[in-house]
Amino acid sequence: MSLNHSEFQSCVQVRPDDIDLFGHVHSAKYLDYFLAARFEQMQKNYNCGMDEFLSKGLGWFLQDFDISYKRPLKLGDTAMVYTNIMELQNNGSIVAFRILNQQSNKLVATGKGKFALVDIQSARSVAIPDWVIERYSINIENP
Amino acid sequence: MSLNHSEFQSCVQVRPDDIDLFGHVHSAKYLDYFLAARFEQMQKNYNCGMDEFLSKGLGWFLQDFDISYKRPLKLGDTAMVYTNIMELQNNGSIVAFRILNQQSNKLVATGKGKFALVDIQSARSVAIPDWVIERYSINIENP
Amino acid sequence: MSLNHSEFQSCVQVRPDDIDLFGHVHSAKYLDYFLAARFEQMQKNYNCGMDEFLSKGLGWFLQDFDISYKRPLKLGDTAMVYTNIMELQNNGSIVAFRILNQQSNKLVATGKGKFALVDIQSARSVAIPDWVIERYSINIENP
Amino acid sequence: MSLNHSEFQSCVQVRPDDIDLFGHVHSAKYLDYFLAARFEQMQKNYNCGMDEFLSKGLGWFLQDFDISYKRPLKLGDTAMVYTNIMELQNNGSIVAFRILNQQSNKLVATGKGKFALVDIQSARSVAIPDWVIERYSINIENP
Repeated sequence: MSLNHSEFQSCVQVRPDDIDLFGHVHSAKYLDYFLAARFEQMQKNYNCGMDEFLSKGLGWFLQDFDISYKRPLKLGDTAMVYTNIMELQNNGSIVAFRILNQQSNKLVATGKGKFALVDIQSARSVAIPDWVIERYSINIENP
Repeated sequence: MSLNHSEFQSCVQVRPDDIDLFGHVHSAKYLDYFLAARFEQMQKNYNCGMDEFLSKGLGWFLQDFDISYKRPLKLGDTAMVYTNIMELQNNGSIVAFRILNQQSNKLVATGKGKFALVDIQSARSVAIPDWVIERYSINIENP
Repeated sequence: MSLNHSEFQSCVQVRPDDIDLFGHVHSAKYLDYFLAARFEQMQKNYNCGMDEFLSKGLGWFLQDFDISYKRPLKLGDTAMVYTNIMELQNNGSIVAFRILNQQSNKLVATGKGKFALVDIQSARSVAIPDWVIERYSINIENP
Repeated sequence: MSLNHSEFQSCVQVRPDDIDLFGHVHSAKYLDYFLAARFEQMQKNYNCGMDEFLSKGLGWFLQDFDISYKRPLKLGDTAMVYTNIMELQNNGSIVAFRILNQQSNKLVATGKGKFALVDIQSARSVAIPDWVIERYSINIENP
């Protein structure tokens, strides 16, 4: 199912511990910024927070991830992280993201992650339940 | 010099990568929250940001740090970090902090850090210049 | 109970993501090195690994931590982390540590952590069971 | 230039602070394991350590990165990280990696990173010097 899913945005603060020896946000932290934005948006925009999944014994595990770095973020910057669901699959989802520098509005990084919905106890992938599909299919332009 | 220095506050988001195997913010991250708050307040409240020190070849290096953990922070929580300068010494400062859970307003952790002002090139401690003492001595009650 | 508990050592690699904007291992990482050493030694030296505690629904939560930084570690360095139990209390332990630079054998940091044994489900502190006291009381000089 | 570049291996310890709320090594840490292995191998296997680049005002900046996660690493595991240069380009390199669980020898993750050689002062990409090409072209089978 590949609807035209809405894009949401989250603001992530650059912390001093994110800075590497080059004075830039460390390359691995952009994945953390993406996940921070995603968790916030699951709660705020999809009304479907990670705690609700955890309470049902479910988790979202990252299967594939790719990123292209365009410009570095630095100390004092704020990341604006936009994510949207590219594709809802039978037992997973592909989520695209763009990170912009809030001050300059310039593109910092783009990429996407493929997540599997997993039964934490058995560590097995499960089909996405209807209630998740329904909430994930939110579309701001056509609610 | 031990004035009654003002306390300032910063809001730090808990990120998913801060969470440990117990489902709590990892113990080492509270130091990062303290530093994040401190860097923000140096800029915003003291008008004396880390970039200004770096541009002069100076840095603040942590010499001693202690912390007491009271209650854990969890995913979805926000940390309110209060810091105040306890003591300005000839070549360093002692900064106290309290971290509260913004939602519950309950105490999460308290502690303090002793920082040395350091000439980055030589890695030697230097006397705190007058312009720093002046800006650090800001007192909201008595500006 | 304050026996003359043995000191054990672990070798912890400095990773590039540990390095901060000053080119040093970031201040919060020394706590991580201490915990890494402690976990390894619980398993290897006390025959009492964290997984055994977790399987019994128990965890060790940090209550207090203090550290003094002496010299920085840098990229390419290896940390030698020595820990020893200073004190076994009714429901917790105080563990001291020293971190040395393996190459230079110079002191990098010293400190200690106070841990509480906690029932993870209830989040309440519990008395240290006899089997833990027995294994923790290992003394190399007098085995 | 696409020689049959040799593959090298590094052992990376899983630290407690690498573990996430699911009890697995956090997804962003695999990039850190890859970089840790790469830095070690640049020094040990290519005789061309990052400090040599830094002393010449050069750095390797990540431009693109992708990873597929196969099985999680857990507390107590050790990562065996294999990397090899897939391609040396005019001003960059593509480095492939495989991460295995040292105990089980099972595949944990695969991926690759595209690095640009950058003049740190100007933040501009530079052509890879001959001395780097020479050392990077090491081939164990045909030394």
